[in-house]
Amino acid sequence: VVRQSNRRSIRPVSPRRARRSDARRDGILKAAARIFRDRGFADAGMRDIAAAADLSPANLYHYFRGKDELLFYCQDRALDRMLASVDRARRGSVNAATQLRQVLAAHVTTMLDEVEGATAHLQVDSLSTVLRRRIVDKRDRYERAVRRIVERGVKSGEFSAGDPAIVTRAMLGALNWTATWFRPDGPIPADRVGHTIASFLVRGVETHV
Amino acid sequence: VVRQSNRRSIRPVSPRRARRSDARRDGILKAAARIFRDRGFADAGMRDIAAAADLSPANLYHYFRGKDELLFYCQDRALDRMLASVDRARRGSVNAATQLRQVLAAHVTTMLDEVEGATAHLQVDSLSTVLRRRIVDKRDRYERAVRRIVERGVKSGEFSAGDPAIVTRAMLGALNWTATWFRPDGPIPADRVGHTIASFLVRGVETHV
Repeated sequence: VVRQSNRRSIRPVSPRRARRSDARRDGILKAAARIFRDRGFADAGMRDIAAAADLSPANLYHYFRGKDELLFYCQDRALDRMLASVDRARRGSVNAATQLRQVLAAHVTTMLDEVEGATAHLQVDSLSTVLRRRIVDKRDRYERAVRRIVERGVKSGEFSAGDPAIVTRAMLGALNWTATWFRPDGPIPADRVGHTIASFLVRGVETHV
Repeated sequence: VVRQSNRRSIRPVSPRRARRSDARRDGILKAAARIFRDRGFADAGMRDIAAAADLSPANLYHYFRGKDELLFYCQDRALDRMLASVDRARRGSVNAATQLRQVLAAHVTTMLDEVEGATAHLQVDSLSTVLRRRIVDKRDRYERAVRRIVERGVKSGEFSAGDPAIVTRAMLGALNWTATWFRPDGPIPADRVGHTIASFLVRGVETHV
């Protein structure tokens, strides 16, 4: 069981106070993600994160038990957005190429445009066993959802892929790797990077007509 | 200037002793790469590496000044192999698709089959400024060599790529990411993973006929 560091589950608070606390948690997660991105997870300290979030270290520990809990919530939110993009794509089109292109492009913008997303490519070895299990399960769920789009495309004849499992991992690798080279102040905006890579990857499986 | 921890440059040794020393260095690099792969660079200690290489810590320091020098030599060797594969591919064929497929497949087997190669995907933030510069320069050289194959293919009409620079990085990301999920004891051998991903990526740029 994961212990909640957020005390709301223990003592009742007024709605206004709860809203303020949620906003504070959001701000802390964004600050933590920024520090993880800039220094790497290993070199990030709770003190740096507290300073970036404009909190005292003691106050930071009131919200989160440690670095690994912060990483967990950043990754968990990014994965929720990626899973939501799969649902959106499936509701929006029956065409596997269109669905896949949308999901892959959204993956890149989640990682590059939203601060917490930048932690999605980080390895989960630093998490405690329980938190790691939850992230790995959610990652696997997302990977399966992407692979199912590839497999449906193969079944309908839209796609041909040597090995859908390997090809799906190659796609996710191409997307995750963007976090290592993309510069927010560079000449190419995140959404153009996303569309360029998504089109390239979908071409790699589309059946030539 | 990078200081050589290898004392051969300072005092003359007999050829047999030099050979023994080279073999010892090779063994140490492989042991270090294995520890980096299994524990991550941040959690690897010189003591662990010494134990894995069957040396005393003091003896290990006789060969290498520290963890970052070990990481440097592992990455440097892997990049040398990748650069050599570009030369080999260019000598072997004039066809851009054939060249690219060979280079991308060799990248995967270098990373997955050869222990030092597994460090090639690691970020270089842990290296000292001088060593980092040298690895980043060699990486850039390799990236440019791969991109030039893509660009030549575009010029000759073999390929069409939205943006050769972004597409090349997407390819390298798909390859580097294999180090995070490939299991040597899994059902699919490294060279099959390499060929599957290389074919998929080359399809992504090939002009449909």
